[in-house]
Amino acid sequence: MAEPLGEFDLIECIRRRIGAQADVVLGIGDDAAIVTPLPDRQLVVCTDTLVKGVHYPPETRAADVGWKSLAVNLSDLAAMGARPRWVTLALTMPESSGGWLEEFLDGFLELAVTHGVALVGGDTTRGPESITVTAFGSVPPDQALRRDAAQLGDDLWVTGTLGDAALALQHWRETGRIDNDLLAARLNRPTPRIAFGLALRGIAHAAIDVSDGLLADAGHVARASSLGIELHTDALPASDELAAMSALARQGLQLAGGDDYELCFSAPVEKASQVQSVAAACDVRVTRIGRLVDGSGMRVLGPGGQVLSLSEQGYRHFAS
Amino acid sequence: MAEPLGEFDLIECIRRRIGAQADVVLGIGDDAAIVTPLPDRQLVVCTDTLVKGVHYPPETRAADVGWKSLAVNLSDLAAMGARPRWVTLALTMPESSGGWLEEFLDGFLELAVTHGVALVGGDTTRGPESITVTAFGSVPPDQALRRDAAQLGDDLWVTGTLGDAALALQHWRETGRIDNDLLAARLNRPTPRIAFGLALRGIAHAAIDVSDGLLADAGHVARASSLGIELHTDALPASDELAAMSALARQGLQLAGGDDYELCFSAPVEKASQVQSVAAACDVRVTRIGRLVDGSGMRVLGPGGQVLSLSEQGYRHFAS
Repeated sequence: MAEPLGEFDLIECIRRRIGAQADVVLGIGDDAAIVTPLPDRQLVVCTDTLVKGVHYPPETRAADVGWKSLAVNLSDLAAMGARPRWVTLALTMPESSGGWLEEFLDGFLELAVTHGVALVGGDTTRGPESITVTAFGSVPPDQALRRDAAQLGDDLWVTGTLGDAALALQHWRETGRIDNDLLAARLNRPTPRIAFGLALRGIAHAAIDVSDGLLADAGHVARASSLGIELHTDALPASDELAAMSALARQGLQLAGGDDYELCFSAPVEKASQVQSVAAACDVRVTRIGRLVDGSGMRVLGPGGQVLSLSEQGYRHFAS
Repeated sequence: MAEPLGEFDLIECIRRRIGAQADVVLGIGDDAAIVTPLPDRQLVVCTDTLVKGVHYPPETRAADVGWKSLAVNLSDLAAMGARPRWVTLALTMPESSGGWLEEFLDGFLELAVTHGVALVGGDTTRGPESITVTAFGSVPPDQALRRDAAQLGDDLWVTGTLGDAALALQHWRETGRIDNDLLAARLNRPTPRIAFGLALRGIAHAAIDVSDGLLADAGHVARASSLGIELHTDALPASDELAAMSALARQGLQLAGGDDYELCFSAPVEKASQVQSVAAACDVRVTRIGRLVDGSGMRVLGPGGQVLSLSEQGYRHFAS
C-alpha cells in the first residue's frame, strides 16, 4: 500500500511535474493562478466532470482517467475552434494515494504537453472519486464555431468513426472487461480534434463535439440554429469493429452512443472540397452524413431514403 | 417528491435564471462559454470543490451550499486582490431535483449578483453530491496580492473574527445541529472580502484567505516568503461567542479552525493607519495579530510573551 499523502503533499506532487509557460505569471501554489490573456482574443471556457462509475468504469486505469478528464474538455474547446491554453484540475479522491496520482498525472500531462496546455491550478479534496477540469482557450473575436450558426442547406459532417466508445462500454457491461484494444482506446483515450477544430474556422458554420450521442448532439445544433437535420444512416462512418455488426445494432451505437468526442459540424456545400483538404492536412477522416433542412428536429433516413422512426435517444446522464 | 429532471432540463433551469452581462459573448448552452477579458489586465483563476459530508454537514440547506460553493472561490479572488468577473459551476448530484437546484441557485446567485459575477457555464452530472466552482477575476499587471511577497518587519493582520465556523462545526458534531444563528451563518454563509481585497492593492504585501486555519494559512505565507511569523494569541479577534469560552478552547478554534474565509495579510508597519482607514471604508474589522520575522515557521506567543508549544495544526483534508 502506498503511503497516504496530505493535501499539501498532493499539491506539491502535482507542482513538481508542471513545467513553466511564458503566459503563466503564477501557477499552482497560491490562492489563485495568474495568467496573461492574449490581446485581441476572446477567452473560451468550458468545464466537465467525470464521476467514477458514471462516466468511466471503476476499473479504468488512473492514467486513462487522467487523459480522459482532460480530453473531454479539450474536445469542447476543439468544437469551438479555440486554441487551448490553460487548465485547472479539481480532483476528489476517497483516499490519497501518491501512486494513483502519479499515474493519473501520467495520462493527464501526456495529453496536456501534446497540446501545449499549462496546468495552472486546482484543488484536491477527499470524497467519492471524481474529476472536474476547467479548460481555457483563445479565439479571435467572432470566429468561434457556435452551435447556433448552422445555415439552411449546409452539409453535416463528422470526424473519425462513431459508436466505438459505446461498443466498448457495451463489452464492459456484458463481460466486465474490454478485450479489444482499439475499442478500449476509443473509450479511454479519446482524441480531441484540436488542430482540425482550428482549421475549421472560416470554413464551418457550426460545430459541436459528440459526447452524448450523435442524435442528441446534432439535435442541439438543429435546435440552436432553428433548423432541422436529415441524417443518412448508411453514411455514418464505422470502424471495422462496428462495420462487422448488424446494421441495426451498429446504427443504434452510432446514433445514440456517446463518448466518441468526434466533431460534428455544418459547412456550406461549396466548401466541401476545402473541408476534405484541411481534414487531409490534419490527418483526420471526415464524412458527410447529412444536411441542414427546413423545419426542426432530427430526421433519420435509411439506405433507401425511407424515414426511420428513431427518437432522439442520446445519452442523458439523468434520464429515467 | 419533486420530479426528476433530465440534464438538459437542469441546464435550462440554470440558464433561465442568468441575466446578460456585457463582457459575456456566449453564456450557458454551447460547448463552451466565450467572454471578453479586459485589455491590460491579468486573469486570475481559482477552483474549489465542496463535497457533501466533507466540506459541509449533510443537513446543510441547498441555498447555503450554493452560497458557500461560490463564496469560497470569491474569497480566493479577494485574497489575490482580484475583481471577480465570471464563474463556472460543475454540479454533481445523486438525483436531479428541480427543487433542490432552485434553492441551490437562490444562494449561489444571491452572492453572484452582489459581486457582479456572471455564471457563464458549467456541467451537471450524476454522482455523490459535490460542487466545483471555477472563478475568474481580473487584476492590473503585477498588482495581485501573492503569498510570497511578505517582507521582514511587516505587520500581520486579519479581517473579521476567527474560529466561529469551527465552533459551529463543533456544535454540529456534538449535537447534530447548530442552534446559534450567528455561528451557523459564519459556517454556511462566509463573506468573501472582495471590496477590502481590492482596497489592499498597493497597501498590503502578501495575502491569503483563512480556509484551512490561521496557523496553516499564515504558515503558507511564511514559507512562500522565506520568513517566520510571530503570532500573539491575545490579539486574535473573537466574536462574543468565542470570547465567552476558556482561553485554551478559544485559541484552539482560532488557530486551527478552518472555514472562516477571512483575509490574513501582511503590510508595512508605516501603512498601519492606511490599513485601518480602508478597512473602515469597507466596513471590515481588522486586527493586527503578529509580524513577519527572521527565520521560518510560526511562533505563537501567549499573553506574557511566552512561546506556546503549538504545532501547526490547520485543517488538512487528507490528514491521518
